[in-house]
Amino acid sequence: MATKRINMKDIAQEAGVSTATVSYIINKRSDQVIAPQTIKKVEEAIKRLGYVPNLGARALASRHSHLLGLLIPQTEKETKLMFSNSFYGTFLSNFEYEARKKGYNILISGTSADESYLDVAQKRSLDGIVIVGVELESDIKGLKKNGIPAVLVDSYGMDKELSSVTIDDENGGFLATEYLISMGHRTIGIATGYLTKEGVNTERLKGYKHALSAHGVPQDDTYVYSGTISYEYGIELGLSLAKSPDRPTAIFATADILAFGLVKGLKKGGLKIPEDISVVGFDDGFMASNMEPALTTVRQDVDSKARIAAQLVIDAIEEKESSSNIVLPVSLVERESVRKLVVN
Amino acid sequence: MATKRINMKDIAQEAGVSTATVSYIINKRSDQVIAPQTIKKVEEAIKRLGYVPNLGARALASRHSHLLGLLIPQTEKETKLMFSNSFYGTFLSNFEYEARKKGYNILISGTSADESYLDVAQKRSLDGIVIVGVELESDIKGLKKNGIPAVLVDSYGMDKELSSVTIDDENGGFLATEYLISMGHRTIGIATGYLTKEGVNTERLKGYKHALSAHGVPQDDTYVYSGTISYEYGIELGLSLAKSPDRPTAIFATADILAFGLVKGLKKGGLKIPEDISVVGFDDGFMASNMEPALTTVRQDVDSKARIAAQLVIDAIEEKESSSNIVLPVSLVERESVRKLVVN
Repeated sequence: MATKRINMKDIAQEAGVSTATVSYIINKRSDQVIAPQTIKKVEEAIKRLGYVPNLGARALASRHSHLLGLLIPQTEKETKLMFSNSFYGTFLSNFEYEARKKGYNILISGTSADESYLDVAQKRSLDGIVIVGVELESDIKGLKKNGIPAVLVDSYGMDKELSSVTIDDENGGFLATEYLISMGHRTIGIATGYLTKEGVNTERLKGYKHALSAHGVPQDDTYVYSGTISYEYGIELGLSLAKSPDRPTAIFATADILAFGLVKGLKKGGLKIPEDISVVGFDDGFMASNMEPALTTVRQDVDSKARIAAQLVIDAIEEKESSSNIVLPVSLVERESVRKLVVN
Repeated sequence: MATKRINMKDIAQEAGVSTATVSYIINKRSDQVIAPQTIKKVEEAIKRLGYVPNLGARALASRHSHLLGLLIPQTEKETKLMFSNSFYGTFLSNFEYEARKKGYNILISGTSADESYLDVAQKRSLDGIVIVGVELESDIKGLKKNGIPAVLVDSYGMDKELSSVTIDDENGGFLATEYLISMGHRTIGIATGYLTKEGVNTERLKGYKHALSAHGVPQDDTYVYSGTISYEYGIELGLSLAKSPDRPTAIFATADILAFGLVKGLKKGGLKIPEDISVVGFDDGFMASNMEPALTTVRQDVDSKARIAAQLVIDAIEEKESSSNIVLPVSLVERESVRKLVVN
């Protein structure tokens, strides 16, 4: 089934005028004088045929496509986008809504390692891009050089000249760990994703270590569990911890979805939460309070993060504002997944 | 910050040739004879400047954009896309992955009432579109007339000439309701979204009614609760049912996310599940087994649904296959949210 679109030639035929005349009228060229009755004939033909101007063609002329790229690098070595993690779903819903209100559509892409952001942006004539969780500075340099408006979300170690939105990840890790210490825990593990040189997981780990040392709790690297931010890794880790006699008394998981899997695996392995082991998450998506037990977690405001990212990239495109680096606060939400230990 | 992309003029300047020559080389025009050393000069300039061909421009020439639209009509009268519902997240992850493997990018759009699918497809030069949960046949007619490959997901009452993927929704409603009857329930409610003339909720309601009448259980329209497929409506309904003395002994919620909210609201209202009221969901996303209590629900295979939708639209674009109408099976997953009633 081939795509048949109404084009200017069809309109010209229908109206009995030249294609050039149709083009002049559609593109509102002021340097051409066209008789009012010709304009009327063409407009009627457009109406009869149901012609819709092609924004791809318009973009070439005006250099504005009104298309934003939402690029999600596959840092976790996963192949599919991680939309089973409700963080991404919530981000997308809010980002798309904000963009739609301002007349922009969203192109979504899980970029692979061999495809740079710049390639996607140029191939698709994107007006601007938002990258969630970027790791490699080199790709960003290409964007800057080419002047493509870009906003970085949850990215670290990048040039501050680009706009960015992030949360206080290190403080989140600190709050979770300090809370566990205040509840009497002294052997505290951290379950996290792939640890790159810089990134949200690395920041949250930094906060965890900072809290331990601030309170004189010894660090033990065997308690750092690094896998993928996924439900599946959580289950796997939970099952293995349940079998291990020298496991910590509490685990800070750097994402709710990881905590959900962890709780599932620990339960499958025969442990009770929080009686046998305590768990703290990170995100506070709407499911956190529905878990059994309800999950104590670090709350971040994903709605605002997404909305601000959309606003910043559109402002950059429309040349309204210079770059901003926004850091949103986090807080700890106490529920039922942590037990108070009596310290001997 | 204005977008500065390398264009043919830049390359021409760099190579010291005319823009027309650059265009002939880039577009591989066989009707022009160009000296090999000129080709080499231009190719080197392209390399130095990091030029990437603009697929928008290419699409105009070849009529293939390798861009698929994933359109999600806002049937629930909500403004934002419903990606907090993990059904959509799971669908998107699998759809994008399948499309990416075959060289397609995804444009995602929550179409508003005043914007037809055809408009979006034409404006964006989409090669094909997948519409999730369409309600209005008129818009589809426009697509058919214009020959734009389209696949309908979770849509009813449409022309069978278009490819479609759905599940056996009516049977899902039947299975859930029959199970509740087999567990001794005689007053069974249904919590669902906005009921259109045709759609997945309407089909699931049909299955519910069919099961009631097949087992001689009287129907009571006051037990049909129609709102939105959302966590929020579930909470609202649960709170109101908890206060109502003549509530049914069991509720079939036509989506897990609705069941999650419902359980939350019922608990907030002081009821225990399943002791005081039983709940069955629909979807069996990965969170269903993590709820307290673990949710008994109708299982559908969203991964396959998304993968098949991507394959069908790409096959139609590449003219590999004529239209297919795929119906995937459903099954009931028994967990802990339903209590066996002793019938007096």
